Amino acid sequence: MEVLRKSLIHCKRCIQGFRQNANTRSFCSKNTATATPATESSGSGEGWERRVVTGVQPTGALHVGNYFGAVRRCVRLQDEGEDLTVFIADLHSLTTKQDPQLLQENILDLTAYLLASGLDPDRSILFAQSAVPRHAELCWLLACLATHARLAHLPQYKEKSAETKEVPLGLLLYPVLQAADVLVYQGTHVPVGRDQLQHLQVAAQLVKTFHHRYGRMFPTPQPLLPDDGSDRILSLRDPNKKMSKSDPDVKSRILLSDTDDVITKKIRKAVTDFTPQVTYEPTSRPGVSNLVALHCLAADKTPEEVVEEADGFTTAQYKKEVSRALCETIAPIRSRALQYRARPALLRDVLRHGAARARKRADDVYERAAAAVGIAPPAPDLIKHIRGQARG
Amino acid sequence: MEVLRKSLIHCKRCIQGFRQNANTRSFCSKNTATATPATESSGSGEGWERRVVTGVQPTGALHVGNYFGAVRRCVRLQDEGEDLTVFIADLHSLTTKQDPQLLQENILDLTAYLLASGLDPDRSILFAQSAVPRHAELCWLLACLATHARLAHLPQYKEKSAETKEVPLGLLLYPVLQAADVLVYQGTHVPVGRDQLQHLQVAAQLVKTFHHRYGRMFPTPQPLLPDDGSDRILSLRDPNKKMSKSDPDVKSRILLSDTDDVITKKIRKAVTDFTPQVTYEPTSRPGVSNLVALHCLAADKTPEEVVEEADGFTTAQYKKEVSRALCETIAPIRSRALQYRARPALLRDVLRHGAARARKRADDVYERAAAAVGIAPPAPDLIKHIRGQARG
Repeated sequence: MEVLRKSLIHCKRCIQGFRQNANTRSFCSKNTATATPATESSGSGEGWERRVVTGVQPTGALHVGNYFGAVRRCVRLQDEGEDLTVFIADLHSLTTKQDPQLLQENILDLTAYLLASGLDPDRSILFAQSAVPRHAELCWLLACLATHARLAHLPQYKEKSAETKEVPLGLLLYPVLQAADVLVYQGTHVPVGRDQLQHLQVAAQLVKTFHHRYGRMFPTPQPLLPDDGSDRILSLRDPNKKMSKSDPDVKSRILLSDTDDVITKKIRKAVTDFTPQVTYEPTSRPGVSNLVALHCLAADKTPEEVVEEADGFTTAQYKKEVSRALCETIAPIRSRALQYRARPALLRDVLRHGAARARKRADDVYERAAAAVGIAPPAPDLIKHIRGQARG
Repeated sequence: MEVLRKSLIHCKRCIQGFRQNANTRSFCSKNTATATPATESSGSGEGWERRVVTGVQPTGALHVGNYFGAVRRCVRLQDEGEDLTVFIADLHSLTTKQDPQLLQENILDLTAYLLASGLDPDRSILFAQSAVPRHAELCWLLACLATHARLAHLPQYKEKSAETKEVPLGLLLYPVLQAADVLVYQGTHVPVGRDQLQHLQVAAQLVKTFHHRYGRMFPTPQPLLPDDGSDRILSLRDPNKKMSKSDPDVKSRILLSDTDDVITKKIRKAVTDFTPQVTYEPTSRPGVSNLVALHCLAADKTPEEVVEEADGFTTAQYKKEVSRALCETIAPIRSRALQYRARPALLRDVLRHGAARARKRADDVYERAAAAVGIAPPAPDLIKHIRGQARG
């Protein structure tokens, strides 16, 4: 939690910083780890147009970890003027068993929550992954460059495949599709948590192999890591684990769809320890520190501020403060999301509009990739373009 | 070779049979193993519209084994009035290293040879696999249902992956894409050789899993095995192996692009044995019997006829007969193919036309599959359609 601590301290200095979107409680552009201007560079000096690409799985309601760690970060990137592409990763969600009807509901739910969180479908590109065939098509091209050994050794694959006797092939392919998701838009940056870094390395390796075999085509996507610890929100019931959608204990997480009452109850039941004082000691007191971290993210405060304000409170009293801060952040999002959710036709229109924009970009990139590998005839202008890029 | 023997005997009875297409030397509809009329049934009584689907890899020139075993069989199926879809399997070819420029050439070469062999792009659907995104998209859906263990145990995968240290993932996915290739057209029948039967079993398993999880969607594709032994043409240099495109010894195979001179030389150098007489004993004399088999396929004769006619010939003299029969079959195809090949724009137009027809069918099937798994909204008519099929 050292990183969280540092970044929150850092954040205090610019607490009055960038505020653009009234829909979101922006507090600090620094926190999104994208202080660099939105025109250049991928970090490797490749000179690609800067494009941020990310996906969110439509597997049930978002929890606050997802919100602070992914959704709010994206909205802030958008508000800083980044070229942002956000897709609903419905193809990825199929790597685990899904109820089809529920999946459809979840896709609309997620769309509603993304819009409610401030994602602007005119400024950013928002769509469902499966609506753009080029993801699956580029996935095949990349799968022909990926090696089985490399993928089977990724920790997430090992972990997930250990849970099941019959490992679906989709699980092995997961990082290849992830690479395709980004590369098909020539994405230069991907907002990720630390646990996704190895998947980004797979993408980098695939780019390298593609270039070696066929010539320069894709930027090497760089991670945008949060420096506010928002990728490390812990379970409320077991502060040794990350907060997770798949935890069987629903009290382990706070959902964006939770009412104020439910939020308050879940925080009241959050596991802490037997010391009544509020302190921020992530290693020795992970439970209380997790509440402090949530409070900081919700209220745009530093751990020092929060702990100082809580002076004299017992943990039980402090929990009320945390609930209040969370409710203040979540309630307006929930309320807007419910309004959006009541209009499924609008949501589908938003996704359709986004998919059309995404397809245009993806077609352009995929057609060049297909020509490079030899499955499509190289149009004269494509050849010129590829050669120009190879020289670039 | 017992099957070859039997079928060739069988064939004699109907040697004056079905002849429809002047471009091909049709001799016996029985030989294509599709004596059933072109309206029903998949063998499992599922009641699907009968559709034959097959792919040919664009990896270099076709040899006579490919021609008799795949191409000519397809043309005969077409001429019998079957609903035939033939795709150039360019996505499959990427599972091994390809030179992009050569691959493009090979795609046009193959198109030229398919047309020259009598494939009619108006009656049949002919296109390049990569031009129809639904193949790759359905491949992803099916990969989420396939298990790694099952695919890794297929003999072809074991064999190919044993040859290379870094096994490309595409090789493991190969049979899943094959299944998608057929299912995306709701193909009921696939002309295969015996070595492909296990891949068809993978497709059958995927259909079963899909139906179990999401409801009825695809026919279970049935194999159309040749009963003329055309899937068992052997190497001319080592009659213990099948004739193969990948054999390093070019004299091991006769290509459709070989001139009469080259064909004659290759047959002259074909490995036989030290017995000068011509007999048909596939087990004890595979080399000579392979020549007899080629002769039979080329000249529409039975081994008995061929052996009788060769009475008194030495193997060396007989080889001239074989060459003559092969040249008579191949020369007109080669000549027509060269004419087609000189018109790349025409070939591309043919493929474009075929792809448009294929996309229409594939879109229809894929959209229903996508709705069934939950990544697309179920349109009211789709729901009705799916329920109707489930009851059917």
